[in-house]
Amino acid sequence: MTVIPHWLTKQATLAPSQVAIETKNCKRMTFLQLKQACETYAKKLAQLGIKQGTHVGLFSDNERQMIVAVHALSYLGAVIVMLNTRLTANELAYQLKDANVNVVLVSDHLQASFNEMDLPTKSYAYTYVEQLPKKDVTLKTDIHLDDRFTIMYTSGTTGKPKGVVHTYGNHWFSAIGSALNLGLKTTDKWLCTLPIFHVSGFSICMRSVIYGMPLYLLEKFSAEAVHEAIIKHRVTIASVVTVMLERLLQTIGSNNYPATFRCMLLGGGSCPIHTLEQAKQKNIPVFQSYGMTETSSQIVTLSPNDAIKKFGSAGKPLAPAQLKIVAPNHEGIGEIYVAGPMVTKEYYQHDGANEASFHEGWLATGDLGYVDESGFLYVVDRRDDLIISGGENIYPTEIEHCLINMPGIEDVGVIGRLDETWGEVPIAFIVKSDSKLTEEDIKNYAKQHLAGYKIPKKYYFLKKLPRNVSNKLMRHQLSKHLQTLEGE
Amino acid sequence: MTVIPHWLTKQATLAPSQVAIETKNCKRMTFLQLKQACETYAKKLAQLGIKQGTHVGLFSDNERQMIVAVHALSYLGAVIVMLNTRLTANELAYQLKDANVNVVLVSDHLQASFNEMDLPTKSYAYTYVEQLPKKDVTLKTDIHLDDRFTIMYTSGTTGKPKGVVHTYGNHWFSAIGSALNLGLKTTDKWLCTLPIFHVSGFSICMRSVIYGMPLYLLEKFSAEAVHEAIIKHRVTIASVVTVMLERLLQTIGSNNYPATFRCMLLGGGSCPIHTLEQAKQKNIPVFQSYGMTETSSQIVTLSPNDAIKKFGSAGKPLAPAQLKIVAPNHEGIGEIYVAGPMVTKEYYQHDGANEASFHEGWLATGDLGYVDESGFLYVVDRRDDLIISGGENIYPTEIEHCLINMPGIEDVGVIGRLDETWGEVPIAFIVKSDSKLTEEDIKNYAKQHLAGYKIPKKYYFLKKLPRNVSNKLMRHQLSKHLQTLEGE
Repeated sequence: MTVIPHWLTKQATLAPSQVAIETKNCKRMTFLQLKQACETYAKKLAQLGIKQGTHVGLFSDNERQMIVAVHALSYLGAVIVMLNTRLTANELAYQLKDANVNVVLVSDHLQASFNEMDLPTKSYAYTYVEQLPKKDVTLKTDIHLDDRFTIMYTSGTTGKPKGVVHTYGNHWFSAIGSALNLGLKTTDKWLCTLPIFHVSGFSICMRSVIYGMPLYLLEKFSAEAVHEAIIKHRVTIASVVTVMLERLLQTIGSNNYPATFRCMLLGGGSCPIHTLEQAKQKNIPVFQSYGMTETSSQIVTLSPNDAIKKFGSAGKPLAPAQLKIVAPNHEGIGEIYVAGPMVTKEYYQHDGANEASFHEGWLATGDLGYVDESGFLYVVDRRDDLIISGGENIYPTEIEHCLINMPGIEDVGVIGRLDETWGEVPIAFIVKSDSKLTEEDIKNYAKQHLAGYKIPKKYYFLKKLPRNVSNKLMRHQLSKHLQTLEGE
Repeated sequence: MTVIPHWLTKQATLAPSQVAIETKNCKRMTFLQLKQACETYAKKLAQLGIKQGTHVGLFSDNERQMIVAVHALSYLGAVIVMLNTRLTANELAYQLKDANVNVVLVSDHLQASFNEMDLPTKSYAYTYVEQLPKKDVTLKTDIHLDDRFTIMYTSGTTGKPKGVVHTYGNHWFSAIGSALNLGLKTTDKWLCTLPIFHVSGFSICMRSVIYGMPLYLLEKFSAEAVHEAIIKHRVTIASVVTVMLERLLQTIGSNNYPATFRCMLLGGGSCPIHTLEQAKQKNIPVFQSYGMTETSSQIVTLSPNDAIKKFGSAGKPLAPAQLKIVAPNHEGIGEIYVAGPMVTKEYYQHDGANEASFHEGWLATGDLGYVDESGFLYVVDRRDDLIISGGENIYPTEIEHCLINMPGIEDVGVIGRLDETWGEVPIAFIVKSDSKLTEEDIKNYAKQHLAGYKIPKKYYFLKKLPRNVSNKLMRHQLSKHLQTLEGE
């Protein structure tokens, strides 16, 4: 078992006056201040009976106190169950029960809404805990990389959410894999505007404390705040999803990002080529990536040098990671398996999912893809989303990628519908940006770009597509919607 | 057990056309070429019966083929016993037997001298192996971090050399610890002029392949070649020992190193303050460090910002490392213990040394030191070198540090001599740079700077002090010399 010194204590020793957290109103907290705040908070949390191995829910939006709570819980050896603040009472009740959580820490401003849900769990607001006296407990000085640290429920594009268990080592190796890929500069400052309750935001908090790097924290995404963070506050790296990048490009105007801004790390699904081209014109270095909760964030990343040349690719697996395509068809497309010390080893108490997903050290991702002759990964689709029509494989993402490039279309989602003749046929949901666009226009466009069997048999117009917080299209919701529409 | 993809195979995929090795005559080898050369060489080595677990001696000076051999042996899972090419036949015979080595790979130009030693071990020159046909064996695709990779005999400032076993993980975590400290830039190029058969040079080869960074290889140290490497070939980081830094400063003249040169990593013992000041005047960023074979290279490093302010300190332990002072005296000086995933877990088949050195995950270094209130380590001396005189602890290094600053003195070594009255008294060996300097002059200087009991009772003048290849003073050789001189 590999043991390292506690990363926050270490940074407080190595670089006590280095900024750990910077917020929009120019409040800064150094690593020494952060460590002291976390140690104090840990001793107050201990009053609640929280100790080594306690499962503690964290129901919080991005705020400084959330990061304090995360490290404080690590000083006690507690396991943190990261809760999505947008969940319904039923969804929360399921996760709390599934993860054996009896105590939840809650953002002050979320306390009222949390209480309204009337969940069978004790909950405490941040400031309530602040007022407790300190308990005289011994705090952790080391981190055992094999110990459990967090449980995060998969965003659930299909099926019931499963609790992904991350060890300290999963998060540590993820941070190191990213550093080996992107490099590490003393001037680095990473923007955290993605939710910390998801691995996309959480991993930024980990990199901050593992590298000794300032994190620039935004409570909520807004294009203006991100521009300001990059231009005025010299953020050098930002993690975003496609829709955020698009909003940034729409609002950047004649501004230019400074040369110090060196990486726009893009996660959460594919990006239209015109967006990449726009970013290139503005000299914004976009790094496309592929990852999931199970891989503790990005595990495959494309550098900006390859972004246009290898359009559609997620890149190559990071230094400590491996990738293979299992059971490829004649086109080389098969299920993506990943391995490496940043990949989770278990879904929490879920033998079925564990048996289905783990095979001799490899995780079956459920995603379909292929690897080209130079080693670049192309993610084709979720295995469950594959449409088989008259014996032909149809990848809904391929159709979506085609139609999104049609002028007048803002967003596209494609799913399969049962069909007596073909088994399944593709159906498209369209969000228009040009209100005059007709089904006929789209059919004509599709005919020019897609083989006949790939052309959607029906088009439905929606105001918005169901996407989760990581911008992933939730196709099972489109399927439910289709049943309503077509009365099946 | 943590598994990562084989680091060379990985770099050949991630950055096939990146330079892996650059040599003085502008020969370059990319990571793809290096991987192909190593795979081919591995299959030829397999003809000799080398396979998983075979102990293979490597008797080589710094040359490109040495690096090829190292990685080729890792593709077979062999354990490499790194042999110091300056050893005598008796010393080599001891190490080969102790490490269970039956086969040795030898630099072509060293073959004749190796054969003359008539050792009971099969040996093969690099080019002999080159001519063998390839054997159809399966090469490693992964690296298990807990597997043994190298055995290096401690430089032996005291006692019989012991074989330090390094796992792949020891070398990997050492490289990561260094990157977390120094950062990682795409323009980095690390100079390797220290011997690869020592951990100081070997660790540079590891960083190269773990980071995907070019290594600039020099067969032998020469100040001119190092200047050229830094000024003309844009080396950004160089590892040196004090005597090398001094020669560089003596010969740099009116030249200046470019701003791209960002780190002169200094190992192998303490550095006189005037040398540090000279380096500062020339804008050479010197990072003092502390490490040993057992820690897989530097484990404590001082940044240039602190170099003068914290003169004499080795710095703070790297991110994954820990340090404690055991059984401190009233001045806070005690034995330095270190821990972390870069620290060896065993001396090869040496129960005595293992029992004496490892205590609940900590390595007792045998060095004495203290940590100041800001967490900076000061290495005082080897525990075995401590002189106890009339109940007072005398640290020979303190006396050496004092006398080295006297004009006219080039080098100093201090040891203890048995004394009927005091138990022990300090004795100094001096290398003069000013031939007119007398014992009287030195005594007067010492009186001004040292407490009476610390003033050496006798001075011997030598042309050169016995220092090992890492520039460490071999005090046991001075003790032997003293016995001859004083007829004990």
